[in-house]
Amino acid sequence: MSLIQAKTPPGVMELLPKDQIAFQRFLDTIRRGYERFGFLPVETPVFETVDVLLTKTGGETEKQVYFVQSTGARQQGKDAELALRFDLTVPLARYVAEHEHDLAFPFRRYQMQRVYRGERAQKGRFREFYQCDIDVIGKDTLPVAYDAEMPAVIYHVFRELDVGGFTINFNNRKMLAGLFETFSIEDGERRKLALREIDKLDKIGRDKVIESLSGEGIGLDRELATRLLDAIGLTGTNAEIMAALGAMAGRSDLFAQGLAELDAVLAGLKALKVPEEFYRINPAIARGLDYYTGTVYETFLNDFPGVGSVCSGGRYDNLASHYTKSRLPGVGISIGATRLFYQLKEAGVIKGDGSTSAVLVTQLDPALSADYLAIAAELRDAGINTEVQFEASKIAKQLKYADRAGIRFAVLMGTDEQARGTVTLKDLGKGEQHDVPRAELAERVRGLIDGQR
Amino acid sequence: MSLIQAKTPPGVMELLPKDQIAFQRFLDTIRRGYERFGFLPVETPVFETVDVLLTKTGGETEKQVYFVQSTGARQQGKDAELALRFDLTVPLARYVAEHEHDLAFPFRRYQMQRVYRGERAQKGRFREFYQCDIDVIGKDTLPVAYDAEMPAVIYHVFRELDVGGFTINFNNRKMLAGLFETFSIEDGERRKLALREIDKLDKIGRDKVIESLSGEGIGLDRELATRLLDAIGLTGTNAEIMAALGAMAGRSDLFAQGLAELDAVLAGLKALKVPEEFYRINPAIARGLDYYTGTVYETFLNDFPGVGSVCSGGRYDNLASHYTKSRLPGVGISIGATRLFYQLKEAGVIKGDGSTSAVLVTQLDPALSADYLAIAAELRDAGINTEVQFEASKIAKQLKYADRAGIRFAVLMGTDEQARGTVTLKDLGKGEQHDVPRAELAERVRGLIDGQR
Repeated sequence: MSLIQAKTPPGVMELLPKDQIAFQRFLDTIRRGYERFGFLPVETPVFETVDVLLTKTGGETEKQVYFVQSTGARQQGKDAELALRFDLTVPLARYVAEHEHDLAFPFRRYQMQRVYRGERAQKGRFREFYQCDIDVIGKDTLPVAYDAEMPAVIYHVFRELDVGGFTINFNNRKMLAGLFETFSIEDGERRKLALREIDKLDKIGRDKVIESLSGEGIGLDRELATRLLDAIGLTGTNAEIMAALGAMAGRSDLFAQGLAELDAVLAGLKALKVPEEFYRINPAIARGLDYYTGTVYETFLNDFPGVGSVCSGGRYDNLASHYTKSRLPGVGISIGATRLFYQLKEAGVIKGDGSTSAVLVTQLDPALSADYLAIAAELRDAGINTEVQFEASKIAKQLKYADRAGIRFAVLMGTDEQARGTVTLKDLGKGEQHDVPRAELAERVRGLIDGQR
Repeated sequence: MSLIQAKTPPGVMELLPKDQIAFQRFLDTIRRGYERFGFLPVETPVFETVDVLLTKTGGETEKQVYFVQSTGARQQGKDAELALRFDLTVPLARYVAEHEHDLAFPFRRYQMQRVYRGERAQKGRFREFYQCDIDVIGKDTLPVAYDAEMPAVIYHVFRELDVGGFTINFNNRKMLAGLFETFSIEDGERRKLALREIDKLDKIGRDKVIESLSGEGIGLDRELATRLLDAIGLTGTNAEIMAALGAMAGRSDLFAQGLAELDAVLAGLKALKVPEEFYRINPAIARGLDYYTGTVYETFLNDFPGVGSVCSGGRYDNLASHYTKSRLPGVGISIGATRLFYQLKEAGVIKGDGSTSAVLVTQLDPALSADYLAIAAELRDAGINTEVQFEASKIAKQLKYADRAGIRFAVLMGTDEQARGTVTLKDLGKGEQHDVPRAELAERVRGLIDGQR
């Protein structure tokens, strides 16, 4: 029989067990953080009907969709009725609209599942990746106080992820729109163009943005464009930025409203005890999507600015207008966990070096194998993850296996020790070994794991 | 704009948050159990290339496959290159073959992911469902001792799942084949047919099986068929069944080998301290698939026999012959978590009645909202999942929300209490309320959660 090449499909992150353990911990930490704030889990199917998924007219998204078709439907020459989700927002909208009468509002949900995009395969770009989203959905209204909770969750989660310093940048789209008004960009289409240029600030630099703003299409006076960029490039403490923005308030109600919302977010973050070094108002944060209507967020790792935003989101006016007449305003954020994990692993911040097993019970003497199983059962009953070696190979090979697998402890027992009622406990992590009465083994291992001697 | 009907695709289990919490706990329990025995996590992509996935020639499986195609590939009129996995065994085989040189053997992996089958939609049948698998894969050989570990894991997991009594049935395919030999069914094809008939024993009953065995195709003498059924229908303690089987040993080496393996499994289970009431040798367990070559397992819930086997598996000779020349024998089991959860929920064994939040901090007086946020931050810092109500609705409505959401505690604080430095802690679960100094709130909640007063 000729062999088929065993090959992972391109564009996915498939991990070896040690890295998978690290990734699992990573996801668990995010989940624990989301639950700490009382978000409720939702899982939706990997596919949605094409009708539901592709409501938005065309664009980049639809080009990247994966269609799904069963053998039967395919043979009948039917069009695909299903497609893989490309984000968690559309499934959320469908879920909330479908189950509206069974949900309590404000509805706080988290969802951590994989999404699919038919991206061109390239390093660091994934066709299948985890998104870890939270959203709070109101019915008719949703107080701006929820906008302050989002950065508090980000702070909590990223501190727990232990990935070094990070800064949550936030801004307000109303403030930005008001700023455009103030600078005489009244027309909606021109504002959209201006927003898009400002979004490029980091990439193309201030001069080029001024050039585009004063060029054809937007046609802002060059001096106004410069002053607009001054406003958008404001730096300093949050209080200083608020003061400088306050000084620009004038005829635009939108601007005033945006400013008041920024103020509310600042007040909320203070009350929620998020240290100020972790967040800052950044008037240059625009977020490309039209979807967002108020607060917007982007989060950067201080030591890895090149990674880009690792947690983004914002406030929107209406979640599910395609599926229900109910008005469902919301605010949410998303962590692209696969990409973030991949980049932190590449940067050496995350190391896959652990095992799920804490202990390997070795097979020193096959005649004692019933004892080895019993020792393992005792350790497991004490809540210690334990593996038994059943292959009667050389003990050096067994210890090498434990070491390679990242298992910290090895238990050895020969007939002498059995007679004495003791075992040898090797701490492979520390290169130490202890003679331990068998009856005290579980307690001893627990103590060493918890850091006592 | 006309609305699109928000509808979950047919044949999937989508849960409301409370049930999703229960399901999440269900999966976590299984995962914890698998890790307790030192199994390592693996996740594979939802799709595999068609080449890899569809190595087996035809059959039911291929008819049920979902093919996946990106917009681009579709427009070019190409054949689908990807398909959704229909189980976790094929991805495991591909994974082990692909990463063979990076894995330590025996390789102990667990995998808990969704799989996809284009089933006809009907109640209790799912097109998308979780499988929770463990397998131990050896290189060249794998001692039979691992066969005893599987029921020990099943015992551990199902005890933790807390679903009432259950019985792990196991058998040995070599013993069964040897039995056929003993009863003069030597020919492989006839054996296969006989196996299939025996697999129907539960459904069609003893008499009909005897009829088929002595009918055309198998053509066993009627008396022999009856004696074969006597052997297969053996009941009693494990020791009694072993004794009765032992008495049948004779000219078949296969039979003797199977019997020795059953003996080894029994000895292992004893050493692993699995109480004997939880497992029994059942000579009628055949498992349809040709795949299995030694020990086979099926697990039944004592109170819900109609549910069928809730955890099945067995020993196989070679995992990945399609992808590698290495010989990779293994043993594994699988829990169909979606179906099991669904049926236990239908039977009322599992109730979705909890929340991720332990505490709701209510909004009694909007002027105090900064305090409410601070109280929430204090509770969260103490590791207590806490939600803040930001909508300044009537307090009765807020409490109703908490109750409906399954949140056990509500914290209330008005200006009087603020002045006194206390809060009111309502235990909605018990219908009690306590006046608590704010500084002691977290400790008090923790105490109530842990069951102290």
